[in-house]
Amino acid sequence: KKNSQWSANCPNDWINLNVGGTIFSTTRSTLIGRETNSMLAKMFQDSKQWRNTVDGNGNVLLDRCPKYFEPILGYLRHGKMIIEPSIDPRGVLEEANFFGMMTVAKQVQNIIRERKKENYEEPLT
Amino acid sequence: KKNSQWSANCPNDWINLNVGGTIFSTTRSTLIGRETNSMLAKMFQDSKQWRNTVDGNGNVLLDRCPKYFEPILGYLRHGKMIIEPSIDPRGVLEEANFFGMMTVAKQVQNIIRERKKENYEEPLT
Amino acid sequence: KKNSQWSANCPNDWINLNVGGTIFSTTRSTLIGRETNSMLAKMFQDSKQWRNTVDGNGNVLLDRCPKYFEPILGYLRHGKMIIEPSIDPRGVLEEANFFGMMTVAKQVQNIIRERKKENYEEPLT
Amino acid sequence: KKNSQWSANCPNDWINLNVGGTIFSTTRSTLIGRETNSMLAKMFQDSKQWRNTVDGNGNVLLDRCPKYFEPILGYLRHGKMIIEPSIDPRGVLEEANFFGMMTVAKQVQNIIRERKKENYEEPLT
Amino acid sequence: KKNSQWSANCPNDWINLNVGGTIFSTTRSTLIGRETNSMLAKMFQDSKQWRNTVDGNGNVLLDRCPKYFEPILGYLRHGKMIIEPSIDPRGVLEEANFFGMMTVAKQVQNIIRERKKENYEEPLT
Repeated sequence: KKNSQWSANCPNDWINLNVGGTIFSTTRSTLIGRETNSMLAKMFQDSKQWRNTVDGNGNVLLDRCPKYFEPILGYLRHGKMIIEPSIDPRGVLEEANFFGMMTVAKQVQNIIRERKKENYEEPLT
Repeated sequence: KKNSQWSANCPNDWINLNVGGTIFSTTRSTLIGRETNSMLAKMFQDSKQWRNTVDGNGNVLLDRCPKYFEPILGYLRHGKMIIEPSIDPRGVLEEANFFGMMTVAKQVQNIIRERKKENYEEPLT
Repeated sequence: KKNSQWSANCPNDWINLNVGGTIFSTTRSTLIGRETNSMLAKMFQDSKQWRNTVDGNGNVLLDRCPKYFEPILGYLRHGKMIIEPSIDPRGVLEEANFFGMMTVAKQVQNIIRERKKENYEEPLT
Repeated sequence: KKNSQWSANCPNDWINLNVGGTIFSTTRSTLIGRETNSMLAKMFQDSKQWRNTVDGNGNVLLDRCPKYFEPILGYLRHGKMIIEPSIDPRGVLEEANFFGMMTVAKQVQNIIRERKKENYEEPLT
Repeated sequence: KKNSQWSANCPNDWINLNVGGTIFSTTRSTLIGRETNSMLAKMFQDSKQWRNTVDGNGNVLLDRCPKYFEPILGYLRHGKMIIEPSIDPRGVLEEANFFGMMTVAKQVQNIIRERKKENYEEPLT
């Protein structure tokens, strides 16, 4: 009874996600709009096939790390993959792979490479 | 019925924003006072034309990144564009563009340029 | 009816502040004890003259940035002006000026000067 | 009566942990899947033998530091031990030892060694 | 009536602290176990003599900075004084002194000295 039931206290398109204990508010169109073939998009495209589990407040439960999920949600909102210097991009890569977001995964791998390069160059100068 | 209805548990001018899951408390005068022609100002100037969606607690929903929205709200409060060293200014630029805040966008672009310059200069010394 | 009414679920001297969406719990004696002539002290000295607005939970609303207000509240508690390296002191200066805390403002300006000096010296070595 | 009773507002496999005041949402299979012989795994394998204390909201109480527990939960989710640069790995080691996670403890000790090495090398260049 | 009454929604030994607005969940044995003669230990040893004030949710109120209290609670849990690089140890010292924790204060003073030394050495190389 609790499955596949969108957050009750969110109007129409709005969805609250409970990612590992942290609540993110967003819209269905944001989640499905950019990487249409990803598992994440599919989870919110067809509520019948995917039986997303919701918590007692109607937030869709995702057993993932909120810190690493955040830049992915940012990308879905505005299309730029931005990872703060304080966040380890390898954690974001785990999320991208888990949700089957191939374009995102490639961009994160580039960021991992760039940061490694920067760290190697520093002691050389 | 849930649309265009200001936060019930906030007196007169006060507005609670739910930005991607994080709650910001502020006033209507702060939101409309500084960049009068921006989309953000317009969203709170005329509650009839703009039908802002609110969550179950009466907070106006914005499907944006709280981390990058925060310095913009700070600017609307005190007039200085301050971006912490831990925040990537490119994320703030996305917000400024989204809300149509042209003066803010220019200031953020200057900050992006300055930080790039600093990073280039470091390996040169 | 909602104005000038101290937080109901806080015993005697305790006050909950809602600073831009973040809740700070403190006491009236902390807020008025150190800089007696500041606007902040006056806001909590005479509840009749200052009609502080409270939110639905009885927290006194302040339309300011919690990040920059935090070190000021710390100063009021223990008397030391400590600003974390991750916090831009210019933001704290805005708060000190807004609340008319002149001694604090001077200390923050010293911190701003010291940090600038440190940044200038670094590329010189 | 409050002991050994799984979080009521979480469906089937889901568990809410209250780690030192911070709530983490995860699943029983995540907690017991990777290090089956650890104390943490045992705490959630047999709810009869281990009488986990829960708070008033049904969250399992753990008197530990959330900051240092977080990377351990991340490891249990995706199998990578990632510690942000802002987190002191010695704190994570305390958690790994407390929960009897030997594989994790070894990985954290390696990270401690690597970071020390990096810090020693820096002044040499 | 609200004084000296332990948090109602916490079973037996568990205590919720409201430190300046942030909630920490811990146990009485953690708070009194390590530095038995400190004021903090005494506040929770004899609930009759110390009349701790609690908020509307039964959390014991402490008008202190949560950021600086956190490493002290960590020490009480596992016995190691760990202060993240992002936290100014002078703030932690204020807490240690306030709560009359002399062993902790000495350790924090050592950390302050070490960090100063590191900062002085850097420009010399």
